[in-house]
Amino acid sequence: MNFAKLAAQFRVPSGQKVRMQEHDPGFTAGYKKSDVPDELLAEGVAEIAAWQEKLYAENRQSLLVIFQALDGAGKDSIIRHVLSGVNPTGVQVFSFKAPNAEELDHDYLWRIVRALPERGRIGIHNRSHYEEVLAVRVHPAFLGPQRLPPRTLGDGLWRMRFEQINNFEKYLVENGTEIVKIYLNISKKEQAVQQLERIDVPEKHWKFNPNDIEERRYWDDYMAAFEDVFTHTSTEWAPWYIVPGDRRWFTRLAVVNIIAQKLKEMAPQYPEASAETRAAMPALRKQLAAELEA
Amino acid sequence: MNFAKLAAQFRVPSGQKVRMQEHDPGFTAGYKKSDVPDELLAEGVAEIAAWQEKLYAENRQSLLVIFQALDGAGKDSIIRHVLSGVNPTGVQVFSFKAPNAEELDHDYLWRIVRALPERGRIGIHNRSHYEEVLAVRVHPAFLGPQRLPPRTLGDGLWRMRFEQINNFEKYLVENGTEIVKIYLNISKKEQAVQQLERIDVPEKHWKFNPNDIEERRYWDDYMAAFEDVFTHTSTEWAPWYIVPGDRRWFTRLAVVNIIAQKLKEMAPQYPEASAETRAAMPALRKQLAAELEA
Repeated sequence: MNFAKLAAQFRVPSGQKVRMQEHDPGFTAGYKKSDVPDELLAEGVAEIAAWQEKLYAENRQSLLVIFQALDGAGKDSIIRHVLSGVNPTGVQVFSFKAPNAEELDHDYLWRIVRALPERGRIGIHNRSHYEEVLAVRVHPAFLGPQRLPPRTLGDGLWRMRFEQINNFEKYLVENGTEIVKIYLNISKKEQAVQQLERIDVPEKHWKFNPNDIEERRYWDDYMAAFEDVFTHTSTEWAPWYIVPGDRRWFTRLAVVNIIAQKLKEMAPQYPEASAETRAAMPALRKQLAAELEA
Repeated sequence: MNFAKLAAQFRVPSGQKVRMQEHDPGFTAGYKKSDVPDELLAEGVAEIAAWQEKLYAENRQSLLVIFQALDGAGKDSIIRHVLSGVNPTGVQVFSFKAPNAEELDHDYLWRIVRALPERGRIGIHNRSHYEEVLAVRVHPAFLGPQRLPPRTLGDGLWRMRFEQINNFEKYLVENGTEIVKIYLNISKKEQAVQQLERIDVPEKHWKFNPNDIEERRYWDDYMAAFEDVFTHTSTEWAPWYIVPGDRRWFTRLAVVNIIAQKLKEMAPQYPEASAETRAAMPALRKQLAAELEA
């Protein structure tokens, strides 16, 4: 199983018209769960952890990983499986809910900017600014409280936002924050299975929200909105990956590989000491060694 | 090996005069590294991870774990070993350096408050407000840029700060943020060993700072400051644990156990669905099941 190649095949080429019908949520590249040794996921997580140590030490770049998906796709669970095992000092996870009053008093990227990863860190955005061209597009009433300039509220709003988002992401990449965007692609049927489980398993009741089931009525609207997002915002500098989501063991492996490959490309390195520090080392070494021999 | 009892024995009783001489940095309760199966640490981490899932789901309490230690004690490494394996969505790590200009424009707890864990999270403070009665006490020149009211700058300053800190922590505990404070107790000799390693291992050069070796001159001042801190700020509500730090395998086990025991005491539980949600479940269940059968 060549995972490096697997991950690459889920990348949406820049400028390509995307049709969700062509992306099978149940795809597993012909593999069954039993074909894949349990250690493979752990090895991938360990690879991410090793790169992250260097990223943190280097302290010059950061990586923003954006997760988008419909309810039930298991964003939380994927994040847990992929990043438990990585030093939490180097990982910052933010979950975006509906914007609060303070956030609505600003432009829609304001809260995103405040949650960007610091240099040397991996930032995880569980939902993101893409809600502004997904949930908000499907429910245009959400625009009201944003109090936008009336001139922006025409048919061109979504294209304008795509351009704003592409420019924002380009700026981040140019300034040292690399970006990977992952869509967990589940089927409508799998969503029902997951939602049923939240009803049937008492320990999952806390995740159950009747509105999530209501939202299934808008499935086709969401698919259309996602198609437009992937078609217009999968850029050279911040690509989308549409990852099959119905077989979670496969989804996890693909996501681990996408992140590990990106870190490998970024190639962080342990920094060298400054010339001044190197010059000071021999004398300090001697001093410490003498103390230890005393 | 009874770890639950081990952890408890490092807790500093409230109101007790502490003498650092009585705390052996090399203590291992008579065990050797080879006595302890490798799985023991992993089991402890898994226990923390399991409690953390419930803490997050419950979303009513939070836990603040404060780490203090002198250079070379391995705070970063301990945090990595103890918390890699826990879902990073539920963990927020903050490392406090010397305060910056914006922070110095506020009282010394301002930046701490901004970094407190949200409900349902474990917050890790790598260094903390205790620097204000440790580094600042050893180097009184650090007080200048804090621009305190002149009336506070007498001999009573440190006692005043102990009281402020105790009150601050009491307020947090009363409002749902539990607190555990851990001191990693290394010997002066072990510090030299660790500092030497940063010179000798190129991949550790990035951690090497000549000033850290300079700081060894103040070792006795630091010990005196720590004794006063432990004597006056180990409270019923926010106890200090003085954990032996020279044998890292032992230190890790003790720290894992202290955190796991605290979470067990906090006893977070998966919340039940509201009466309204429970009432809505049967009809929604039927609807989803019908869709799946279609």
